[in-house]
Amino acid sequence: MSFTIQQVMIPVDRGYATVDVQITGQTITAIAPHLEPLGTVINGQDQLLLPGFVNAHTHSSEMWQRGSIPPVPLELWIAELYDFTPLDLERVYLSALGTAVETLLTGGTSVVDHLTLIPGQEFETIATAVKAYQEVGIRAFVAPLIQDESLSASLPDGGLGKQSEAYFRSTQATLDIIEAAVKEFHHPETGVQILTSPTGMQMCSDDLFKGCVELSDRYGLCRHTHLLETKAQAMLAQEKYGRSAVAHLQDLGFLNERTSLAHCVWLTDADIEILAATKSTVVHNALSNLRLGSGIAPVLKYLAAGVNVTFGCDGSASNDSQDLLEAVKMGSILHCVTDVDYKHWITPRKSVEMASLGGATGLNLQDQLGSIEVGKQADLMLYNLSDLSLLPKTDPIGLLILGRPNQVVNQAWVQGKQVVADGQITGIDVDNLKKELFAKSEWASDRPSPMREKMEPHYRQVMNLPV
Amino acid sequence: MSFTIQQVMIPVDRGYATVDVQITGQTITAIAPHLEPLGTVINGQDQLLLPGFVNAHTHSSEMWQRGSIPPVPLELWIAELYDFTPLDLERVYLSALGTAVETLLTGGTSVVDHLTLIPGQEFETIATAVKAYQEVGIRAFVAPLIQDESLSASLPDGGLGKQSEAYFRSTQATLDIIEAAVKEFHHPETGVQILTSPTGMQMCSDDLFKGCVELSDRYGLCRHTHLLETKAQAMLAQEKYGRSAVAHLQDLGFLNERTSLAHCVWLTDADIEILAATKSTVVHNALSNLRLGSGIAPVLKYLAAGVNVTFGCDGSASNDSQDLLEAVKMGSILHCVTDVDYKHWITPRKSVEMASLGGATGLNLQDQLGSIEVGKQADLMLYNLSDLSLLPKTDPIGLLILGRPNQVVNQAWVQGKQVVADGQITGIDVDNLKKELFAKSEWASDRPSPMREKMEPHYRQVMNLPV
Repeated sequence: MSFTIQQVMIPVDRGYATVDVQITGQTITAIAPHLEPLGTVINGQDQLLLPGFVNAHTHSSEMWQRGSIPPVPLELWIAELYDFTPLDLERVYLSALGTAVETLLTGGTSVVDHLTLIPGQEFETIATAVKAYQEVGIRAFVAPLIQDESLSASLPDGGLGKQSEAYFRSTQATLDIIEAAVKEFHHPETGVQILTSPTGMQMCSDDLFKGCVELSDRYGLCRHTHLLETKAQAMLAQEKYGRSAVAHLQDLGFLNERTSLAHCVWLTDADIEILAATKSTVVHNALSNLRLGSGIAPVLKYLAAGVNVTFGCDGSASNDSQDLLEAVKMGSILHCVTDVDYKHWITPRKSVEMASLGGATGLNLQDQLGSIEVGKQADLMLYNLSDLSLLPKTDPIGLLILGRPNQVVNQAWVQGKQVVADGQITGIDVDNLKKELFAKSEWASDRPSPMREKMEPHYRQVMNLPV
Repeated sequence: MSFTIQQVMIPVDRGYATVDVQITGQTITAIAPHLEPLGTVINGQDQLLLPGFVNAHTHSSEMWQRGSIPPVPLELWIAELYDFTPLDLERVYLSALGTAVETLLTGGTSVVDHLTLIPGQEFETIATAVKAYQEVGIRAFVAPLIQDESLSASLPDGGLGKQSEAYFRSTQATLDIIEAAVKEFHHPETGVQILTSPTGMQMCSDDLFKGCVELSDRYGLCRHTHLLETKAQAMLAQEKYGRSAVAHLQDLGFLNERTSLAHCVWLTDADIEILAATKSTVVHNALSNLRLGSGIAPVLKYLAAGVNVTFGCDGSASNDSQDLLEAVKMGSILHCVTDVDYKHWITPRKSVEMASLGGATGLNLQDQLGSIEVGKQADLMLYNLSDLSLLPKTDPIGLLILGRPNQVVNQAWVQGKQVVADGQITGIDVDNLKKELFAKSEWASDRPSPMREKMEPHYRQVMNLPV
């Protein structure tokens, strides 16, 4: 399949050029002011073509909880999440479809799904998510969420003597599940990858991290984990390791150019140097960090240190949306209040680069994805610039990033295959998806959460809050 | 005209009730589980009815600049804004229409337009905005943006010896324009009010504030102004008054229960006490405050002190959208990072109250607007809860406030008159508006701004930034 997008705006230097872009198979094959049309012709007039963005950190099945958890910090929020996590494959399938659709319709051609696994059906959970992503046609990085310590271990002890039960599955059994999934589903050439992706140092042993490093090296897998999302986690790291979690992960060999780290809110300047030296990527989830009160990640410091930064929506229970353009906007403008010198602020063009090339770099695909260049894969977004939300005409990228675009993705391609046409998802029936999501859920409010209530007294005490 | 919304969800206590709501003329006349239908019947099933929100601070004509000004602080941003402010009534008309449409389709039934006036056509500018708002049918609070000092006066001097030219129009001539507009257009019973609304202490004399107080008292007008949006303004207040701007405005008699104050980022605890004592309202514009790097307004402190707080989008050149639901979301979750005790965080239900009753209170209309109660005006929003962005079903208000709702306003009424039907604006042809905005604008990027370049050296020096 070949196609030519005619007379479309693309960003160049500090302005725009109007060009024809030719795609042959999976690849961008020519870009020039005027080309002999090849294959299907797409009219790009008054539209903006950008590389697809990466929703570089989410948890698809949290969609079943969105809007439902009250404003509480991560440690209590996750307790409530545990109480209500869906435990059937049909819901896993539907929320992966929903996550893919929302991501695609808001600028993302790739998704990193830090996927919650159903106990006893771990392999099937991964299979189900892969199936959903393939149906929608989004490029999928399935990162099974694994741990070998229990939730109660994730709180700092603070000398209070917390009690943690053992985790129900052994470290080796967990690693075996990942290896089986890699053998079955890891096919980068088809747009599906499996990542080694421990939940985070707060619920993982050194052995689990080391096992993930070994699998990653053996199969050439990317690595993904949560890192220092909250102050409580920074406290826990000191208790657990007697030093920064970043230095510890470096010593375990977990940090390299294939590693992306979600959140990174509570890092020191020395930690930042480690991220730069190891070429690790930070995935910034501004909306989740605000909603959970985790803090403001020092993103301008990361950029100044040369650390690669990209954006994620995080799961829908902590955002509560998979609108990637919103995550990019907020992840950009939030930092203007962290540095008085506006020369360091993130410009809309920088945001686009972080969301596209930055995302690709975090997945070690910067040579294949993340920019509109001849020879790169055709993961492309064509934005309609005539919606009221983007009018009057000014600077297209300024409007797209700083505004609140309203259903402006007109066409999208992943590996040269059209996945959005005339604003509609091509791979699945979205009306049917809505009906299924509607039918399988109930209105609710102010529900009790036994796990949250159980953990709250210790949390308040260890965080020095009035009890 | 009477109508009955049947079997609609409304919030009660900490849950929801499904009720019929009856409207007769402009007023809510009955709410009960089942009512004898009166007039037109509206099916409210699986929809949420909320009081209309107030977009409590914007500048409609900034729409012509949205997306175009790079990330710089207010003082330089406004210099660029001055360079490119539209100077014709047709553009004033179109941007007021656009502001009204975007506000209505994102939850707002009222708009406070701090309206930039075309020099020499001040009265005509006000007339044009009023006409646009009446055509769309939104409740309009037109607040003419007046000043009697020049832009260069708005920077702190810092001992550098700044030079400010005189303003082109006398204080009295400005007040005369407002009085003429009040006589012609101030008709609260029809949903149009004129406010006395000096730009802010950074460009207004004491005489202008006092003149506004006098007009406000004589005609029963609300008052509106920018207050301490930036650190530079706080520095200027010390230079200009030798004390806080809040204490100064109090002494001028400007602060009372009819006064709403946009931004309020740089207030001290003593200032906050003055706001509480005078029953002034804070209009929080979180998105603009982030985008311009102004800072994070101490909203949780305001709430703790009993100060009324509501939300605004601010003008589209500093946000760059009139999506009121986005402004409410960000204005709520942003504050979770300002207080470690989550018991002080803003819940979604509190956000709704701030956006509706809080907005009404800031306009001294809390007895007539801002809640769904028998006897109150029917300014109502009916939200469609079956869009993918609000699925699966969980807590409707949680989904609406914490999520990223996508065109979910199904029906809206102002004073009992339907202004949105089946998701479409009833008063004007929005497709035609889009065509006009498109035709009257040009793509642009990286344009020079002479005024910004002129002011930048002094700004960097006085703010102690590397020159």
